[in-house]
Amino acid sequence: MYAERLDRARARMRELGIDFLLLSTGADLPYLTGYEAMPLERLTMLVVPADADAVLVIPTLEAPRVQEQPGAFELFTWDETDDPIEIVAGLVTGIDPDASSAAIGDHTWARFVLDLQRALPSVEFRRASVVTGPLRVVKDAAEVSALRAAAAVVDAVVAAMRERPFAGRSELEVHRELVERMLAGGHERANFAIVAAGPNAASPHHDPTDRVIEHGDVVLCDFGGTMHGYCSDITRMFVVGDVDPEVRDVYDVLVAAQEAGVRAATVGTTCEAVDAAARAVIVDAGFGELFVHRTGHGIGTEAHEDPYVVAGNTTPLVAGHAFSVEPGIYLPGRFGFRLEDIVVATDAGPERLNHAPRDLAIVH
Amino acid sequence: MYAERLDRARARMRELGIDFLLLSTGADLPYLTGYEAMPLERLTMLVVPADADAVLVIPTLEAPRVQEQPGAFELFTWDETDDPIEIVAGLVTGIDPDASSAAIGDHTWARFVLDLQRALPSVEFRRASVVTGPLRVVKDAAEVSALRAAAAVVDAVVAAMRERPFAGRSELEVHRELVERMLAGGHERANFAIVAAGPNAASPHHDPTDRVIEHGDVVLCDFGGTMHGYCSDITRMFVVGDVDPEVRDVYDVLVAAQEAGVRAATVGTTCEAVDAAARAVIVDAGFGELFVHRTGHGIGTEAHEDPYVVAGNTTPLVAGHAFSVEPGIYLPGRFGFRLEDIVVATDAGPERLNHAPRDLAIVH
Repeated sequence: MYAERLDRARARMRELGIDFLLLSTGADLPYLTGYEAMPLERLTMLVVPADADAVLVIPTLEAPRVQEQPGAFELFTWDETDDPIEIVAGLVTGIDPDASSAAIGDHTWARFVLDLQRALPSVEFRRASVVTGPLRVVKDAAEVSALRAAAAVVDAVVAAMRERPFAGRSELEVHRELVERMLAGGHERANFAIVAAGPNAASPHHDPTDRVIEHGDVVLCDFGGTMHGYCSDITRMFVVGDVDPEVRDVYDVLVAAQEAGVRAATVGTTCEAVDAAARAVIVDAGFGELFVHRTGHGIGTEAHEDPYVVAGNTTPLVAGHAFSVEPGIYLPGRFGFRLEDIVVATDAGPERLNHAPRDLAIVH
Repeated sequence: MYAERLDRARARMRELGIDFLLLSTGADLPYLTGYEAMPLERLTMLVVPADADAVLVIPTLEAPRVQEQPGAFELFTWDETDDPIEIVAGLVTGIDPDASSAAIGDHTWARFVLDLQRALPSVEFRRASVVTGPLRVVKDAAEVSALRAAAAVVDAVVAAMRERPFAGRSELEVHRELVERMLAGGHERANFAIVAAGPNAASPHHDPTDRVIEHGDVVLCDFGGTMHGYCSDITRMFVVGDVDPEVRDVYDVLVAAQEAGVRAATVGTTCEAVDAAARAVIVDAGFGELFVHRTGHGIGTEAHEDPYVVAGNTTPLVAGHAFSVEPGIYLPGRFGFRLEDIVVATDAGPERLNHAPRDLAIVH
């Protein structure tokens, strides 16, 4: 599988006239090789020439982490007093003295980009996603299965949380429980767990605090992690005790908007049309100004990746695109809502990967 | 505090002839402002001119995350269909049309670096650590207190683990327990938790697996997280049941090496001399080839930062330098050891921040 992905990446490099692909931290390296670089100051970098064998430059102490990948790449280890930038630059000029174009991983740290630019002054650098993006954006059946399995775990976390007490606990305590449940459910890591109660729920990317959850609070829980390399991401809403009728009315609009977004996500529909379909329901209800973000983001080995479900993105959906549909309505100083499922575009129509109930969960 | 740090950063910019400091994800932004950018595709960037007010460019939906920082910076929010690169470039050229030099956060994603270089073709980019490094490397009393508090939490985790069963549990299960205990102990996040049993302990950066821990296994646990913005990092060794005399002999060498490293860490001693002091003990015992990494790394708001305790680093220690002392001995295919404490250089001599017992913990 990895050899085939590397071949497809090389074909695209030749198409674009890119001589080298240089991958470090981020999702491209594990996608193409199965190996994930540690996000540390010691440089790990896969050097992929368009027409020669790939070499993984790696700190000696991390070499034992690399599983056997017969044929995918050679290992080049560097010791603590070696200069890995010099090694990468030497590999590039050694393989192709006339190299003029390199695509570097989108998440590579600036310090490495600047050092490589200095070491390879005649090479023009582009972002690696011009090569890897079109490969990664279409998920094959195994990838969709992995996304489905990750989604099932967070669905089960939601089911458990519907039976749990919220009142009297802090946002941070609930945050920790979400993290622990994702790990216990088989995720290898929790990527984030937003818990926003009461007025805090009006801040879409709220950081959980010591604020204690009270009777009557609306609580937004948006959490996800990584399992077998693929991400989960779900948002569900909880209310402690009684539901204010106004809260329920606003929430009903959101449920309708999310449903409209999901239904619109058919093959051939543009990403911006999916955004518009969800947004129209909220605008029609008079809350347009309160939906302050795009409708969704792609998901795969990264929690956020192409395709983005946003105005201006005219990319038409194809079978295998996987993305969130997550409209929100936020009333500053009062409360806020978001409802999110992961959806895959298929030839048979949009398939939701999350199945946790979408109603306003009443908790105590 | 933040205003004073920003002033010191500006003084250093003027010294170095740097017109703008551009900070995104990474530790510099929270160090200078208290705000940490989300590591996502929506750009957050603090634009710090050498001689004018700073501006934080931030996605609209994340603006409510920013706590009031009177006087530290202005907010400039961007909506989902705006181009944040254009906004940052516009701020730079608007404030100083002749800007020729910018220092960009070391961990800024490559895609943003490349886009900014294209948008600001007459600006030369350097890494921000040339500005922020000398500020961050010396910890004041409050910072040392924060490191001490984080160290106390992982010390308590070690104490708890010494009473826990290891045999029959997988590396991943123990990994999860370490993560949960760090969070329960007050860390806002667990940054890593290496659990390496038996031959896996010979891989210094081993990723925990399903391997079940057995009687007789040596188990390396190296874990740390972040509390109130400052990092913990500790390594302790466990043995299940009986200890092989050879294992104990090798471990005794390591304890002596770590002690020698800590004792050497006095103000005025170079980082490489600290490395050499620990290494000499291991070399003298005949295991020099098996100590495959540097002796330590600085620690603060980042898990790894300056000063690095490594051959070639001739920086002399000053009071307030905080770093790990963590020699290791690795026997490929058999077992491995590392022993790590965080140490602060003070005028009264090296101060260990970790106090968990350093013996080989016998567990069942």
